[in-house]
Amino acid sequence: MGRILVVGFGPGSADHMTARARQAIEESDAIIGYNTYVDLVRDLIEGKEVIRTGMTEEVSRAQAAADLAQTGRTVAVVSSGDAGVYGMAGLVYEVLIERGWREGDDPEVEVIPGISAIHSCAALLGAPIMHDACTISLSDHLTPWEVIARRIEAAAQADFVIALYNPRSGRRTQQIVETQRILLRHRHPETPVGLVKSAYRPRQAVVRTTLQDMLDHDIGMLTTVIIGNSTTFYHDGLMITPRGYQRKYDLDTAQQRLRPGERLRPENEPWALHGGCGR
Amino acid sequence: MGRILVVGFGPGSADHMTARARQAIEESDAIIGYNTYVDLVRDLIEGKEVIRTGMTEEVSRAQAAADLAQTGRTVAVVSSGDAGVYGMAGLVYEVLIERGWREGDDPEVEVIPGISAIHSCAALLGAPIMHDACTISLSDHLTPWEVIARRIEAAAQADFVIALYNPRSGRRTQQIVETQRILLRHRHPETPVGLVKSAYRPRQAVVRTTLQDMLDHDIGMLTTVIIGNSTTFYHDGLMITPRGYQRKYDLDTAQQRLRPGERLRPENEPWALHGGCGR
Repeated sequence: MGRILVVGFGPGSADHMTARARQAIEESDAIIGYNTYVDLVRDLIEGKEVIRTGMTEEVSRAQAAADLAQTGRTVAVVSSGDAGVYGMAGLVYEVLIERGWREGDDPEVEVIPGISAIHSCAALLGAPIMHDACTISLSDHLTPWEVIARRIEAAAQADFVIALYNPRSGRRTQQIVETQRILLRHRHPETPVGLVKSAYRPRQAVVRTTLQDMLDHDIGMLTTVIIGNSTTFYHDGLMITPRGYQRKYDLDTAQQRLRPGERLRPENEPWALHGGCGR
Repeated sequence: MGRILVVGFGPGSADHMTARARQAIEESDAIIGYNTYVDLVRDLIEGKEVIRTGMTEEVSRAQAAADLAQTGRTVAVVSSGDAGVYGMAGLVYEVLIERGWREGDDPEVEVIPGISAIHSCAALLGAPIMHDACTISLSDHLTPWEVIARRIEAAAQADFVIALYNPRSGRRTQQIVETQRILLRHRHPETPVGLVKSAYRPRQAVVRTTLQDMLDHDIGMLTTVIIGNSTTFYHDGLMITPRGYQRKYDLDTAQQRLRPGERLRPENEPWALHGGCGR
């Protein structure tokens, strides 16, 4: 029986790959992935058949995986982050389903979760996603811009922390401008915004900025943009979203951000402090 | 110099822990965590000082970590999932800040990302979060219910895939009922809903249900609820959200779900299929 292992290997350093992701790559006969992804795991794939494709050839990758697995081989479809987030997992299933495959048929499919950009980038910024958060891809290649814009509007209104994936490419430059415009209708111009490029890779770059200044910085294909909610604050270079709201929190008024330290005073948040050290 | 390592070890099996999470626990002198979390890494902590606390004592845990690190020790604050998602990362920073700590001061803090429930549970269900998604905690312990309800409403309207964390506890039983009620105003009753309990642990339980039937199943403290968007479909037991929308997609009309296989026909999605296999 053939096998397709859909592997998310996390941000790209061996340190932040799971044991199962590493093992899955090692036990595969063939590796399929976008060029950049294959390069990130090159230490693990010596002697294996490797199929590299360009960035927009996701369907081809899934088809190649299905073809190879049909010959009885174990094939790893690799990508950075989590393969279930705007990734290859769904596409591999869709290609198999199109060929009449049912669960339990040959090939066997295993999706192996990895650390997605929202979480790897957050860890480098401080603790920006301690409260309800969403991921929105700004790519309108497969999704109409009206759907994306409506999501940005909804997320802004409902005070989600927002992680933007695929914020900008060489040709696609206006979506991030429009996103900022929508967000500024709902959030304070000084809302913290973190820009993280190539997290945990040699060219890692972390920029702490604000909603009003974010476009003054380099934002590209490899950047994840994390936009704080109404309570997110900076302490030195750390971007922190408290995990709760003050009881009197109101989504429609401004000036609710607590200064560092204020949250842990018993008079502000009596419910958050528990007696006893628990040791 | 003391160190606090805030470690998210993923769903709870050694397989899905990152190399850095494992190493961080191993290099620590002391381990602090909620009882259940400490149990999940018991193989790694023999001979170390261990501080176990109850579930609601998060602030105490952060304070104990700060106390211990001030004596020059390396302390791991461990939790399942990602420590930056409704977790200990922000709280450790807040407790340090309350004590006058600044970035660069003693102790050094490192947040180590882990696989959060939305991603581990999705991998078990199929590929339900291939498109824009959000996480919402239904706990109104620190957040007013009005804020939470508004987020559910916004996420439902804007067609996000939704992962509900902390959906229900012994005393807190009505939030999930109210959530279903809100969602049914915007989504089809047969929208796929996945319930995953104890992902990748010995007592793992995966239930595939629908929005209208979800409350007929056991939902508890350890359950993550994943609600599909308007395009999510079941194929056998697999819950799959396609990665794109048909060009004519309209958020306000019903009956948009594509049947399995339909998406990959060139006449439906000409932009998604690329010539050539890329080998």
